[in-house]
Amino acid sequence: MTAQAPPTLAGIGAAAERLAGIAVHTPLIENPALNARAGGRVLLKAETLQRTGSFKFRGAYNFLSQVPTDARTRGVVAYSSGNHAQGVAAAAEIFDIPATIVMPADAPQAKVDNTRGFGAEVVTYDRQTESREDIAAAIAGESGATLVPPFDHAWTIEGQGTVGLEIAAQCAAMDTRPDEVLVCCGGGGLTSGIAIALADRVPSSVIKAVEPTGFDDASRSLIAGQRLSNEPGAASICDALLSPSTGDLTFAAMFAHDVTGLSVSDDEVRAAMAYAWRTLKLVLDPGGAVALAAILSGKVETKDRTIVAVLSGGNVDAALFNACIVDA
Amino acid sequence: MTAQAPPTLAGIGAAAERLAGIAVHTPLIENPALNARAGGRVLLKAETLQRTGSFKFRGAYNFLSQVPTDARTRGVVAYSSGNHAQGVAAAAEIFDIPATIVMPADAPQAKVDNTRGFGAEVVTYDRQTESREDIAAAIAGESGATLVPPFDHAWTIEGQGTVGLEIAAQCAAMDTRPDEVLVCCGGGGLTSGIAIALADRVPSSVIKAVEPTGFDDASRSLIAGQRLSNEPGAASICDALLSPSTGDLTFAAMFAHDVTGLSVSDDEVRAAMAYAWRTLKLVLDPGGAVALAAILSGKVETKDRTIVAVLSGGNVDAALFNACIVDA
Repeated sequence: MTAQAPPTLAGIGAAAERLAGIAVHTPLIENPALNARAGGRVLLKAETLQRTGSFKFRGAYNFLSQVPTDARTRGVVAYSSGNHAQGVAAAAEIFDIPATIVMPADAPQAKVDNTRGFGAEVVTYDRQTESREDIAAAIAGESGATLVPPFDHAWTIEGQGTVGLEIAAQCAAMDTRPDEVLVCCGGGGLTSGIAIALADRVPSSVIKAVEPTGFDDASRSLIAGQRLSNEPGAASICDALLSPSTGDLTFAAMFAHDVTGLSVSDDEVRAAMAYAWRTLKLVLDPGGAVALAAILSGKVETKDRTIVAVLSGGNVDAALFNACIVDA
Repeated sequence: MTAQAPPTLAGIGAAAERLAGIAVHTPLIENPALNARAGGRVLLKAETLQRTGSFKFRGAYNFLSQVPTDARTRGVVAYSSGNHAQGVAAAAEIFDIPATIVMPADAPQAKVDNTRGFGAEVVTYDRQTESREDIAAAIAGESGATLVPPFDHAWTIEGQGTVGLEIAAQCAAMDTRPDEVLVCCGGGGLTSGIAIALADRVPSSVIKAVEPTGFDDASRSLIAGQRLSNEPGAASICDALLSPSTGDLTFAAMFAHDVTGLSVSDDEVRAAMAYAWRTLKLVLDPGGAVALAAILSGKVETKDRTIVAVLSGGNVDAALFNACIVDA
């Protein structure tokens, strides 16, 4: 295990080879109505159509495939509000090894059900009073299971970075080049992986990390040049993006590649989920909708430009989803 | 105008050239969870991602592009419960000509709003007491507008048939060949167009027309060898598939290419809409869900086979959609 090794372009390339035929090569979707509204070209990387309904499968599978076989057979453990949980559970199912997932007691029921559906054991904890890290460490200590980090590990980041390679290849096949790529940012695994891939493939493209209001630690950290944390007490419907801070590796990669950040409100996220349902015919979860929300709310210059927005996930409870689309 | 000319493979090829760069080349989506459930390979042709949220734009645009210019400037008129309405309205907007759409007063509000959003005038009628054909004919007589037939015209059928060409090319690129292709069937425009295209490109594939229970006129007609109508009084949530019968041209093409039919219930359709939301992350309208419903309900043999299901549309009111997914 090389926990502190930074993620590399070569590692992303190797991850793409491991994931070929296993992960879904998700489409880059273009919608004429959205283009007309934006006055430019918007290309949607639909990771909602990925195995488990989010990009997280890529990093989880890439990580598990590099754990030595004898350790891997003792199983894996992970903590996650949901999308990483499903990614790890689905990858573990493919390797036919046990998986234990530590999830907050208030995680969306759909994510809990799906995680169990992949054969994983779910252990819940109280987000206010218990430490998921401690619980996961205790499980790993007892069982010998390997902890699968949600974002701050080269293997995880390199798996997510394959999204960037696909974006570059798909844009090239469409004979276009993105001016800007918008990526949701919680711990920064997806954003940093995409930044590394595109720095090589489309060096002219600008990468932006999109965060929920109140959880803009990455935006502030990238300005400050050092990792900052979110103030406690903030709330957002974007359950997938509530990490207290980015990681050492993810922050370093984002900073090195000139990533900057911007924020969207919960209302802007709800409006984006409704738009995706009504016009794009795509199901997004709140975290998966922030990049689209940045476009629809006018926070990104789209006129006569080509913007890629990563739609990172679509695992959402019916009640929340219904509340969004009823008011549309 | 050559209203009685039958649709041809050459006409479908010409339609594909007209639609290139105008219609969305919709992805053929594969979902590992659905494959696992089916015990085979299911490929989803996502016409929900088409311009206007359904395949209908293809036929409408192909039709309008062949109306002589002097006639076309006088505008177009169409009658439709919604998806054809939006297709015609969007095509007319591209040609910058006036469009009047005759819609039932109880059409889904989303479809009415979207049709108006494309700049069309909407005229409503009472489904029980008024004839949409008469109203449309009167409008055409007064204004000199051209009636755009919803299905029974070569130009309409040939536009829809481009879906079949894309399926064949996409399957070939994936190095596979569909054993069976499931297509929703109301008037039969999409089914007949796909049947003509695939009879040439993948002659071994079987084409099945999927209808709502109580509206299985195509299934019965294809057995009887002659056009039969639905019994009056039936009801279904599949508002896009309630045509009283197939057309002369659509029936002839389906019969000539050995299409057979099968039916799905409203409950099976609701379950398919919920599955698409929960697992596929795709928004389907009831008519757009019948082919998937046929698979999920076990009415189609999927084990160790490759099945293409056309997801024909995703224009649905929030209330109906919510009712489907809440119970999932």
